[in-house]
Amino acid sequence: MISKLIDSIKKKDAPIVVGLDPMLSYIPQKIVDKAIAEKGETLEAAAAAILEYNKAIVDAVYELVPAVKPQIAMYEQFGVPGLVAFSETVDYCRKKGLIVIADVKRGDIGSTSAAYATAHLGKVTVGNSSLPVFDEDFCTVNPYLGSDGIKPFIDVCNENDRGIFVLVKTSNPSSGEFQDRVLHDEDSTLYETVGFKVSEWAKLSMDGSYSNVGAVVGATYPKMGEILRRIMPKSFILVPGYGAQGGTGKDLKPFFNSDGLGAIINSSRGIIAAYKKEKYASFGEDGFADAARAAVLDMKEDIRVNAF
Amino acid sequence: MISKLIDSIKKKDAPIVVGLDPMLSYIPQKIVDKAIAEKGETLEAAAAAILEYNKAIVDAVYELVPAVKPQIAMYEQFGVPGLVAFSETVDYCRKKGLIVIADVKRGDIGSTSAAYATAHLGKVTVGNSSLPVFDEDFCTVNPYLGSDGIKPFIDVCNENDRGIFVLVKTSNPSSGEFQDRVLHDEDSTLYETVGFKVSEWAKLSMDGSYSNVGAVVGATYPKMGEILRRIMPKSFILVPGYGAQGGTGKDLKPFFNSDGLGAIINSSRGIIAAYKKEKYASFGEDGFADAARAAVLDMKEDIRVNAF
Repeated sequence: MISKLIDSIKKKDAPIVVGLDPMLSYIPQKIVDKAIAEKGETLEAAAAAILEYNKAIVDAVYELVPAVKPQIAMYEQFGVPGLVAFSETVDYCRKKGLIVIADVKRGDIGSTSAAYATAHLGKVTVGNSSLPVFDEDFCTVNPYLGSDGIKPFIDVCNENDRGIFVLVKTSNPSSGEFQDRVLHDEDSTLYETVGFKVSEWAKLSMDGSYSNVGAVVGATYPKMGEILRRIMPKSFILVPGYGAQGGTGKDLKPFFNSDGLGAIINSSRGIIAAYKKEKYASFGEDGFADAARAAVLDMKEDIRVNAF
Repeated sequence: MISKLIDSIKKKDAPIVVGLDPMLSYIPQKIVDKAIAEKGETLEAAAAAILEYNKAIVDAVYELVPAVKPQIAMYEQFGVPGLVAFSETVDYCRKKGLIVIADVKRGDIGSTSAAYATAHLGKVTVGNSSLPVFDEDFCTVNPYLGSDGIKPFIDVCNENDRGIFVLVKTSNPSSGEFQDRVLHDEDSTLYETVGFKVSEWAKLSMDGSYSNVGAVVGATYPKMGEILRRIMPKSFILVPGYGAQGGTGKDLKPFFNSDGLGAIINSSRGIIAAYKKEKYASFGEDGFADAARAAVLDMKEDIRVNAF
């Protein structure tokens, strides 16, 4: 699956993933009002507004970027109807030829991780039928439980040609609280130690020169990105934190390998709610999808000029 | 919320939570066949079988135990229909007076954790309406992202009188890979360091003599449980790993405080699939719910005799 992502990055000349993390407050009031008029103040109305908003953004950007990253929490907060909108968003994006990286950050003990892997990347058996479930291309995974929480995902990746990104160094301010702690026995940090494990896990699912086992490292920590780039040479790095969280084009340089590959940069709010920023205000609320398209083009240019 | 759990533990004289983690292979063939006959080999059929099975088990045990712990992965693997069954299971259990500890192990950066907290413990705003979502009493949370991944959950706990259990030392074989590492600067392990953080977070949501912020520590690691019991005096410990994973009644002693409280022990397979074990085979497939009831009574006795 990573080779498919690489092909698409090359074809579209954009190591960019658009984060589909729709807060109701991002969605133009007109869309929300229409959904509420039709379905009342319900979870179903929120889900309908999200889906309409997502589709318009996807229509405006799908030719420019290889991938999207829906953050499932933003759908899960609207319960079952929200998860229907999540599932429909995944399907819509894949039909448009986009690779779907589902940001689900799941992870549990072995048998439970196997169930999550089935849910997101695999097929589940009912009677004699093998049924796809959410059917994403990649998902993110939390490493706190160690190898037996990760390996069931790798098995499912190998069976179904899918991939994962393991959280290594997250983009948030308090990520260092545990991740930056120096470990006594090897004089490296927890995030480095998780990185070394990712480089071992990566060997279990190679696909061309890269592995289906990637890592998440925040753009907000470029120096750590440089270290982790070396520790995990075969892993693609999914880089959140660009834009709204403070990461800039220059910060992205260390995340790429010398082949110009090895990283894919996420922007969520900065793209999908671009019309709310002064820079794109002239698009107006009705032009939210065109504003998103303009923001993608600007991000592409920022990366081309500053990250290479 | 923790005081409500304590009241129910005392009333039912059972520090026990029944794990509702239904694998299709646990469910009597008759129930699965009936669902497939009605709905075909579909996700909906799996969900219907799970719900029927859960309800029969809940009917058989709800008078004996204070709480249930549905593992959401086992539902998520059947997609949206599975999550409908999850939601209906939560509602059914709460109507029966059971406290629902949803094992969801969510955790993300701040704004995203806030969405997960809303999904599981809070209410979401649509228009002028504030709507309950999955509406659980407690949920489990992953600490890898640090305080800003946890605090949004605590805020929602305080607003809605709910609780969380933070993963500290998990029950699985490879949990030590990261959790047992000794940290350089304080000569304590990662799980102890997370435990110290839990004891700080606990102060933010006290409810009587215990906190709404609890911890998960596996029965499979009783010595670490003893250490963590001291580090987190005000936190209830949710203890998985009893029974099928190898923990025994004697292993549970260190998890309790001298007041006889402070721990609640989970058993999943050992109860819900008891009829498949030799000990309860005489109940037969049709007697699966009665077998579950018998297994709860035996577990209660094991804890009474060996853990105190």
